[in-house]
Amino acid sequence: MTVPTKIDTWQMVEPGKLVETSIDVPALQEGEVLVEIAGCGVCHTDVGYYFDGVPTVTKPPLTLGHEISGVVVDGVGDYAKSLIGKEVIIPAVMPCNNCDICASGRGNRCLKQKMPGNSLGIYGGFSSHIPVPAADLCVVEDRKDFSLETLSVVADAITSPYQAAMKAELKEGDLVVVTGATGGIGVYMTQIASVLGAKQVVAIARNKEKLQRSLDFGATYAISTLDKSVKDVAAEFKAYCKENKLPSAGWKIFECTGSKAGQEIALAILSFVGRMMVVGYGMQKVDYMLSKLMAFDAEIMGTWGCLPKYYPEVMKYVLDEKIKVKPFVEFRPMSQIEQAFQESHAGKLTKRIVLTPDF
Amino acid sequence: MTVPTKIDTWQMVEPGKLVETSIDVPALQEGEVLVEIAGCGVCHTDVGYYFDGVPTVTKPPLTLGHEISGVVVDGVGDYAKSLIGKEVIIPAVMPCNNCDICASGRGNRCLKQKMPGNSLGIYGGFSSHIPVPAADLCVVEDRKDFSLETLSVVADAITSPYQAAMKAELKEGDLVVVTGATGGIGVYMTQIASVLGAKQVVAIARNKEKLQRSLDFGATYAISTLDKSVKDVAAEFKAYCKENKLPSAGWKIFECTGSKAGQEIALAILSFVGRMMVVGYGMQKVDYMLSKLMAFDAEIMGTWGCLPKYYPEVMKYVLDEKIKVKPFVEFRPMSQIEQAFQESHAGKLTKRIVLTPDF
Repeated sequence: MTVPTKIDTWQMVEPGKLVETSIDVPALQEGEVLVEIAGCGVCHTDVGYYFDGVPTVTKPPLTLGHEISGVVVDGVGDYAKSLIGKEVIIPAVMPCNNCDICASGRGNRCLKQKMPGNSLGIYGGFSSHIPVPAADLCVVEDRKDFSLETLSVVADAITSPYQAAMKAELKEGDLVVVTGATGGIGVYMTQIASVLGAKQVVAIARNKEKLQRSLDFGATYAISTLDKSVKDVAAEFKAYCKENKLPSAGWKIFECTGSKAGQEIALAILSFVGRMMVVGYGMQKVDYMLSKLMAFDAEIMGTWGCLPKYYPEVMKYVLDEKIKVKPFVEFRPMSQIEQAFQESHAGKLTKRIVLTPDF
Repeated sequence: MTVPTKIDTWQMVEPGKLVETSIDVPALQEGEVLVEIAGCGVCHTDVGYYFDGVPTVTKPPLTLGHEISGVVVDGVGDYAKSLIGKEVIIPAVMPCNNCDICASGRGNRCLKQKMPGNSLGIYGGFSSHIPVPAADLCVVEDRKDFSLETLSVVADAITSPYQAAMKAELKEGDLVVVTGATGGIGVYMTQIASVLGAKQVVAIARNKEKLQRSLDFGATYAISTLDKSVKDVAAEFKAYCKENKLPSAGWKIFECTGSKAGQEIALAILSFVGRMMVVGYGMQKVDYMLSKLMAFDAEIMGTWGCLPKYYPEVMKYVLDEKIKVKPFVEFRPMSQIEQAFQESHAGKLTKRIVLTPDF
């Protein structure tokens, strides 16, 4: 554990272009730490910034990556200093803790929040080290037989769907649908719904093999969208409800694809006293009769990031293996970042890629 | 106060066609009362059924009208009998109080609910009498100097926006926008927001004179949409925020028009940690990028009817003249129903028409 003079990093100099470079370690401010990175997950959001023209808050050049675990190697201020040597997860979004939105309990959408690989200056997770605020780090005291890099995915892939479940007020006995149930977020959304006591967790996705796997990880029933229209999928869902004497009202639908088709399926299933959670991101528009929400007394709710206060409970579920992570993670050296981005963009991966520094 | 053998009524025999007729008083069931109608408000919903092809649950012939006040003249069962002679408001939607949705506190959207003039068999408010369940009637013990027919509008025009405010968790210090602020629901939405302590209530509507009036009834600022695009209106709102050092985040927007333009304005204003309530009904679709809700951590919520439990508190606000009703109500004999429907459909009215029986 040494304090470096330089940070080795893979910078996105412009969308679609990565270069390996090294940058100065900035002078840490009061309340900041320097984290030596163990691993950083490749998220759909990174790929969106890199390939699809989604703009980052800090204009390039910057380093992407916001699913980070590591070890604190330096700090300024009492609390920051007390963390030196600790293993930590860096929340994907860190609130300012000092504005009206934070005070109202909505810090996950604080407008001054810092997100590595987006709005934390030029710093991101595809690096050897990163300077971050200490206040909201999730300290891992005993990671059992988990490697620290495995736990990087807690910061976003698991916590974002957990926040969605909290916002949806997901509770024991609920009826849940997850669209995009086999994707990077969906595999955790499905498990979280199950862990929180949902009575039904209907997994909807394209790939039949992945859907089959979802039945071992929280889903109670699976519907493949392969070669089916939105109407077909909705009809199959309704038939399932009818056969199993389940109400068509009151379902909580977690839309994790961000795609037009996924959103349209979710909207077609949404019914009386139902709730659709927008968990996946995509830039297209959909056409919808908003007054249906009135007639249904239903809601469409967006959900962003995760409050740092939820990290310890998510971590406990993970370390207790109630939410299973290991089957959904694979590791590559960080020097393979470009290939990892491409594979992630192509949507062919069955596991989340965590990149480990090999500078 | 006599129990009649026949109910005089204006039946909609088919959309667009009303006939004056008389029907049998049905044998009351346990827990039902017969109410002699004092007045019934003409609502946008009635006009939708009559002119615009919105389907009623009970197919025509049926009698429309769901904003009803009157006097209980007969009843079966102890509680129902105890109401004989009492003045009551009939909630526009009456839950079954015996299903999972009711048990979850969402009885306003109970699937077995009864709504006069829609799903209460053939019975509606544009009649001399109506048979209704007794359980959820709002008893008016002391109506001060209000006529009973004036109070009919509590059953929908005032309670529906109140339910919207409850669902939106409207509270002291909130920032509120009301689109369609000068319409039949909007005039109360604006007042309710003010009464519940909103710091800002920005009224948006077309008519400048009515908007001017809204400033005396809850609105703190008014924006006219006349000859303006959606973009223009949104820009004017943002400029107002900037001038007055108000955040653009966190507004609760109550969309009361149900029109495409109104919904588009509401969506254009919706921002970070904001909430759009769909209070007005219209059948058109709108195009929207749902992922904005994710990026904003924002919600679009539909709201239907009102829980009977809120009626007494709304009634108290009305009788205390904290929510003002008298300036927004006019009376016509029920025989003028067709003309009242036409004027309401044309959207030229400045006051709610309450029809009083003159059979």
